[in-house]
Amino acid sequence: MTLRGTARHRVVIVGSGFGGLFAAKSLGRAPATIEVTLISRTNHHLFQPLLYQVATGILSEGQIAPATRDVLKKKRNVFVELAEVTGFDLKARHVTAVQPGGRKVTLSYDSLIVAAGVGQSYFGHDEYAEWAPGMKTLADALDQRARILGAFEMAELENDPDVRRAWLTFVVVGGGPTGVEIAGQIAELSRRALKHDFRRFDSGGVRVLLFEGGPEILATFGDKLSGIATHELEKIGVEIRVNSIVAHIDADGVDVKGADGSVQHFAAKTKIWAAGVLASPLAKMLADATGAQCDRAGRIKVQPDCSLPGHPEVFVVGDMMNCNDLPGVAEVALQSGLHAAHVIRNRVRKGTKPTPWKYRDLGSMAAVDRRSAILSAHGVRLSGRIAWLMWLVVHITFMTGFKNRFTALIHWFLCFVGTSRLERAIVVDLDQLLAHDS
Amino acid sequence: MTLRGTARHRVVIVGSGFGGLFAAKSLGRAPATIEVTLISRTNHHLFQPLLYQVATGILSEGQIAPATRDVLKKKRNVFVELAEVTGFDLKARHVTAVQPGGRKVTLSYDSLIVAAGVGQSYFGHDEYAEWAPGMKTLADALDQRARILGAFEMAELENDPDVRRAWLTFVVVGGGPTGVEIAGQIAELSRRALKHDFRRFDSGGVRVLLFEGGPEILATFGDKLSGIATHELEKIGVEIRVNSIVAHIDADGVDVKGADGSVQHFAAKTKIWAAGVLASPLAKMLADATGAQCDRAGRIKVQPDCSLPGHPEVFVVGDMMNCNDLPGVAEVALQSGLHAAHVIRNRVRKGTKPTPWKYRDLGSMAAVDRRSAILSAHGVRLSGRIAWLMWLVVHITFMTGFKNRFTALIHWFLCFVGTSRLERAIVVDLDQLLAHDS
Repeated sequence: MTLRGTARHRVVIVGSGFGGLFAAKSLGRAPATIEVTLISRTNHHLFQPLLYQVATGILSEGQIAPATRDVLKKKRNVFVELAEVTGFDLKARHVTAVQPGGRKVTLSYDSLIVAAGVGQSYFGHDEYAEWAPGMKTLADALDQRARILGAFEMAELENDPDVRRAWLTFVVVGGGPTGVEIAGQIAELSRRALKHDFRRFDSGGVRVLLFEGGPEILATFGDKLSGIATHELEKIGVEIRVNSIVAHIDADGVDVKGADGSVQHFAAKTKIWAAGVLASPLAKMLADATGAQCDRAGRIKVQPDCSLPGHPEVFVVGDMMNCNDLPGVAEVALQSGLHAAHVIRNRVRKGTKPTPWKYRDLGSMAAVDRRSAILSAHGVRLSGRIAWLMWLVVHITFMTGFKNRFTALIHWFLCFVGTSRLERAIVVDLDQLLAHDS
Repeated sequence: MTLRGTARHRVVIVGSGFGGLFAAKSLGRAPATIEVTLISRTNHHLFQPLLYQVATGILSEGQIAPATRDVLKKKRNVFVELAEVTGFDLKARHVTAVQPGGRKVTLSYDSLIVAAGVGQSYFGHDEYAEWAPGMKTLADALDQRARILGAFEMAELENDPDVRRAWLTFVVVGGGPTGVEIAGQIAELSRRALKHDFRRFDSGGVRVLLFEGGPEILATFGDKLSGIATHELEKIGVEIRVNSIVAHIDADGVDVKGADGSVQHFAAKTKIWAAGVLASPLAKMLADATGAQCDRAGRIKVQPDCSLPGHPEVFVVGDMMNCNDLPGVAEVALQSGLHAAHVIRNRVRKGTKPTPWKYRDLGSMAAVDRRSAILSAHGVRLSGRIAWLMWLVVHITFMTGFKNRFTALIHWFLCFVGTSRLERAIVVDLDQLLAHDS
């Protein structure tokens, strides 16, 4: 690829998640002949795996979401722009975007890295979103915080025992890491942090239901770890129902279909959706333009070097990419972002041909509660306290910024060794969230 | 006052600010014959004087707003209820309120303490609120944070130098402590924290304008301290215009009338209103029902013991009370709340007659920037670093909760000794805030 007559090679990166940010960081170390523009809808780099801790009052927004331009401020060849990408012209090599306030702009590129991530999927039942919101953004997490802590407030106001019980029943749909972690934290919140806060009910009696469609939770971790996690969750009071498909959700509860086809109703005011993801609509646009395939989650199937067929200058990385069916986790996003940056840098500097991406699987983990986690890496399977400490080390490592790490450690100490949750302020209009229940 | 045939004396407190919270804390130490219900619209106790630090990315919401029921959890005779009080029946002795979701409820009381605070006042120009929002709630502060940090983002996207200049011009209306503190922090934000973050402009060139209608800023501190604060603010780049009345505000800027009657236009996309307050509408309801007077800010004039004429069982404390024209500051609210609790406790326990409230003036202070503050107490007037350290000690003292204090100290260290602002995440929809500018 030539530099097309310009002295600079312009790279546009879409998205400030792990894929986009690490690509920008890597290209920021490149010679100044490469000019990078990172476009994102948000002003921050979001550590999504910890969103559930914002939702349950453990961490503040800033701790899991440093300002993207702060992270990249020393990379003088990197521009950060706040805008939402709306389309691509792969022939003319430009990206169209809308800035806040509505102005439409066009950005030209020589190389493009698209890392726009995934949103929540309701498997064709988008109407569930109103009652069982997902958790993909900081605004989602603050909304969930209001719903979860607000439910306890509503229970304290309620005299009808059945309605109070519905306020004190929390339903989590989806037994993957996100579902497990939020269910575990709601249980610990009610039994520890809120233990002495209410006068009209015992928060230890709160019911947390975790529904999983498959035969076990955390299936990707294998039977043994799944069993251990199930046991740990049950110990702290989470009721796990496997082979349970959610058939209906409304303001008052959920209908759940068991393996035998029978449908059971659970009265629950608060529902959290952690069941499915759907790639950014940008994936389909790119697939349509290049003939690449999309999988059922809308993720685009990429070439071995993470580029698109016929477009070696366009890379798709992170959660919206399907490369050998790797899971949508931070580590995959980070490494694929770095790889795309690596290919571009070598091509510009030395004219090197692209090399295929090799994922180094560092393993996967999920925190179950404040004392135990499960971890699977290179055939080694760990659980309990040691796994929890490794969870902590890994999460601190992947947080961006020394100060975020430092203050997050303090909050974790206060929450997990003590019982305090410092971020319990409800900042959204609870009345509006609950208006449909009146 | 008799116990009206019941074994318990029911106290209802309206509001979880300094007045309401400290009244509840004090009555929580009383014998269990007193039963307290604290009703508030929010689930937290808000340390309003530090809201500007949430708006400028220094502190998180939780640090200045602990959950009210967490603060009061050991007071077993105190109930905390989330609801908005809508009216009073002083004859029947009950309070009407609306719970989240819309249900109306009635609460009976034997004694009532109303501490519902103040809102922003635009002196008859409520249309300014859209362009120059005030800062009274956590949601306001998060909105301001989005506007302030968003303005820098918009400037980075802008090619027209005039429009970029308007994005980089910040107008603060009102030269009291709040106006001074927010203006100082915007100046420090642009010159220190954001110094290396932008590529298309020098954030050191940002213009911060502070308009004050009177002849000097911080007038209550006296000429000398006012002069010092003016000098310090000008040193960090704040332009102060006294004798300047804001005559018009819209999306693009402000019109300001000088002492000579001439009107000048300033192009500024971001405006912050810190000019006036108006008491909660509950003040007028209570005044109408009791014949008490309200002042120009809608604050109700109370009896010497903070009660209402003809209703020794009803107390009004804090910002919505006018007692000897004391200013609406945290210390007045706190002490008047404690006094009302004291009168009620003595009356119930010993039948003692109410004593008049005596305000112990501990002085007042305002932070100018990260190195200097001004302080006026008992005729002593201090400025500079020593005053700043005292500002820090006093604010740490009045924060509620050891952990909030501890983590706030860390954030202050990182921000004022270092240059980091940890809470820069924009969590509201910037597009919606700016839609009118497109």
